[in-house]
Amino acid sequence: MMGRQRIAVIGGVASGTAAAAEARRLDPDAQIVLFEQYAEISYGACEIPLFLAGTVKDPNQLIAFTPERFEEERGVSVQALTRVDRLDAQSGMLEFTSSVDGETRKAKFDKFILATGARAVSPDLPGVNAENVFTVRDLQDAISLETYISDTVIQHAVVVGGGFVGIEVAESLTHRGIRVTMLQPTPGPLHVHLENDMALLVAELLEKGGVTVRDERMARLEASSDSRVNAVRTVSGEMVGCQLVILAMGIIPNVELGVEAGVKIGDTGAFRVNDRMRTNLANVWACGDCVEVERVIDGRSVISPLSLTAFKTGRVAGRNAARRGAHKPARFEGVVAAQGVKVFDGEVAYLGLTKSVAQESGFSAATVTIRHRTKGALVPESRFIHVTLVFETFRGRILGAQLVGGPGTVLRANTLIPLIRKGATVSDLYEQDLIYAPPFSPRLDPLLVAARKAIRSLEGRRTT
Amino acid sequence: MMGRQRIAVIGGVASGTAAAAEARRLDPDAQIVLFEQYAEISYGACEIPLFLAGTVKDPNQLIAFTPERFEEERGVSVQALTRVDRLDAQSGMLEFTSSVDGETRKAKFDKFILATGARAVSPDLPGVNAENVFTVRDLQDAISLETYISDTVIQHAVVVGGGFVGIEVAESLTHRGIRVTMLQPTPGPLHVHLENDMALLVAELLEKGGVTVRDERMARLEASSDSRVNAVRTVSGEMVGCQLVILAMGIIPNVELGVEAGVKIGDTGAFRVNDRMRTNLANVWACGDCVEVERVIDGRSVISPLSLTAFKTGRVAGRNAARRGAHKPARFEGVVAAQGVKVFDGEVAYLGLTKSVAQESGFSAATVTIRHRTKGALVPESRFIHVTLVFETFRGRILGAQLVGGPGTVLRANTLIPLIRKGATVSDLYEQDLIYAPPFSPRLDPLLVAARKAIRSLEGRRTT
Repeated sequence: MMGRQRIAVIGGVASGTAAAAEARRLDPDAQIVLFEQYAEISYGACEIPLFLAGTVKDPNQLIAFTPERFEEERGVSVQALTRVDRLDAQSGMLEFTSSVDGETRKAKFDKFILATGARAVSPDLPGVNAENVFTVRDLQDAISLETYISDTVIQHAVVVGGGFVGIEVAESLTHRGIRVTMLQPTPGPLHVHLENDMALLVAELLEKGGVTVRDERMARLEASSDSRVNAVRTVSGEMVGCQLVILAMGIIPNVELGVEAGVKIGDTGAFRVNDRMRTNLANVWACGDCVEVERVIDGRSVISPLSLTAFKTGRVAGRNAARRGAHKPARFEGVVAAQGVKVFDGEVAYLGLTKSVAQESGFSAATVTIRHRTKGALVPESRFIHVTLVFETFRGRILGAQLVGGPGTVLRANTLIPLIRKGATVSDLYEQDLIYAPPFSPRLDPLLVAARKAIRSLEGRRTT
Repeated sequence: MMGRQRIAVIGGVASGTAAAAEARRLDPDAQIVLFEQYAEISYGACEIPLFLAGTVKDPNQLIAFTPERFEEERGVSVQALTRVDRLDAQSGMLEFTSSVDGETRKAKFDKFILATGARAVSPDLPGVNAENVFTVRDLQDAISLETYISDTVIQHAVVVGGGFVGIEVAESLTHRGIRVTMLQPTPGPLHVHLENDMALLVAELLEKGGVTVRDERMARLEASSDSRVNAVRTVSGEMVGCQLVILAMGIIPNVELGVEAGVKIGDTGAFRVNDRMRTNLANVWACGDCVEVERVIDGRSVISPLSLTAFKTGRVAGRNAARRGAHKPARFEGVVAAQGVKVFDGEVAYLGLTKSVAQESGFSAATVTIRHRTKGALVPESRFIHVTLVFETFRGRILGAQLVGGPGTVLRANTLIPLIRKGATVSDLYEQDLIYAPPFSPRLDPLLVAARKAIRSLEGRRTT
């Protein structure tokens, strides 16, 4: 293939724009078209809680590039408000429909990058389409919800789901003066990512902030005559009255377009790609929330629906799609899967594997948990922090960690990422000369205290 | 050597108490005596700024263990207010004088641990012993200074020295309503640890907090008739009037006792020890601020006058001194030499080598500096942060880093420690999936932005 290559990027948020920009950087001559079904591209989905909470008033502040600016500064043609209907990778034909004029058109491309993202899970229940039931995924969702909050008197909202989106929305609504009840199936939220005791600490942080946390599942949405939901009925039969329901029950990758074109998906339901972000089709790459990536600790394929993963996989896909002979291929290095979430005046971080996931992956895993302080004990701003280390019981390799505490908890968790990525042990962690000064840490950083406890627990195992 | 062993620990602050406690843990039968020339042992020297600033009112809050409690809970006999005069390692004889009764006594020991620490540099100038000239090293210094501040009207103080002690004292005095001028020999403080541009940022933080930073050396102390210093004359001839002078000009290890006993010192002037903290004498170990330790990046011996180093080397020395056949020796793993200091509402961290130190150590070294934000741009608490990476120009190995910025700067620096310790490159750093959420970080953490800039600078070097 010589001459001017044509590259279609399908999906225009984090990974799609990263892919298009990187492809342009590599090949100044290529014709690159970015397709996006909504009006906005390149916005910061992670900043939606700031908008819902009222900290950021104008949703346009979340937008990094308008389509016009992206075209101008990145030299990528943007087809916003355009839905891609069909992809034929072999012939290179793309079929798409503009929601502006309703017309369906076709165009030929040499290469395709699928950045189709994911959508919020919406259960198959009567009432999910009521005007006061929302999911929070896209900027459009957020604008609709914010408008509804601003225009309606809402005393009480139910957030269904205790993942990080549920937590962020619960806090944002609270800041808007709305009383919030969170329904989620376990005693504490974030139960996929946290050991039970740590999840309970998160529930405490939420309760301290004013959110009622219930370990209940939603069974039904009870709608009044005016097409609004006025209560959530739980599996145990309780009715929780409300004027607003937020469904934060997880995400499903958008793979339909790719699957119809013959792109394979993995066990997670997302596209399978190699470490160059190429799918099973020779001229189709994929990136962002619609792909599986390697979790470096156990080599398993996981969905890592994080902005940084989207950005990095997008750049890898863009580079590899656009590159010609002279350019070395880019590789995506996999994820430790580290995440942080603010919970009122507390912070939660989790990375790597929980004990149960580690055991499923075949590790003989144990945990230790310590409670310590974020700063020197005499510093007025010092707060409590809890650290759980998950480690394998033979050599003490660190498999995961969970931290719940005051300000500084999430940045502290970052220190573990290079260690986990390299297969370091709890003894390796204990060797690190982490910075000590009372404004920043107790003399032994909480991470070191946790490492020491893990080392002693391993010694105990060996001698008994 | 069988039977009950006798271990003398000389020096009772951080490393001495750590050594004594660890020796006791290993050998419940040993007779362990801790000698300390002052009344207090086991206090938090790093918390002195909190006491000087008035945040902590009672200096006893800085004391972790009184001699009585240490005797009781750790089972170590404490000889406070006792100065060790002479050590004869071969015969095992120790000679010491009590400042309570003035008596000199002798006792025999099998093993010795030198934890004699360091003292503040005091220049050989008339006036250094005036009643309003202080160094800030021991708890006793701090109490004297605090009493003087409380009892005297002080408008203006001069702090001589721009190391981290000088900075901490300058901030503390400012919080007490005292105007402070800092004299130090370079345009910005911390010049031993920072590149010039970063040092200037620290000067800005100090100036913003109200401290006047002057690149001037002290030439003389001008004393009035009443034995107080009333001005500092600089090398350029200027008179800086003041009612208080703090000398924060560095430290000298206390090695005299050991040297007389035949313990060898290295080029730094501190005791030479192996990685088991043993000196050249078979029954003498040493730890804390009076020893040299290995800087892992270049293998050089350095003094690492940090609390964590004191604690860890103390434990290693205590364990190895007390251990018998059944116990494995402990090893000290060396230092990256990471340090953090609060400067009013800013933070400074530095670790590893500066460019000039790296070049002295034979590396072909380069730097990049980036300016970014501590949190997402839309978060109201987001502040600026500057990151300098020092790296070698062949493979891109990270040799050091310096960070100056708002809250979160120091904890962020910790992430680099495991990487530097393992010889990681700027590309390795860029691979780390550091946590992103707007309350904690911009989408690309400042460390990753710095890594990317370093990678591009290396690519530029290769192609040109």
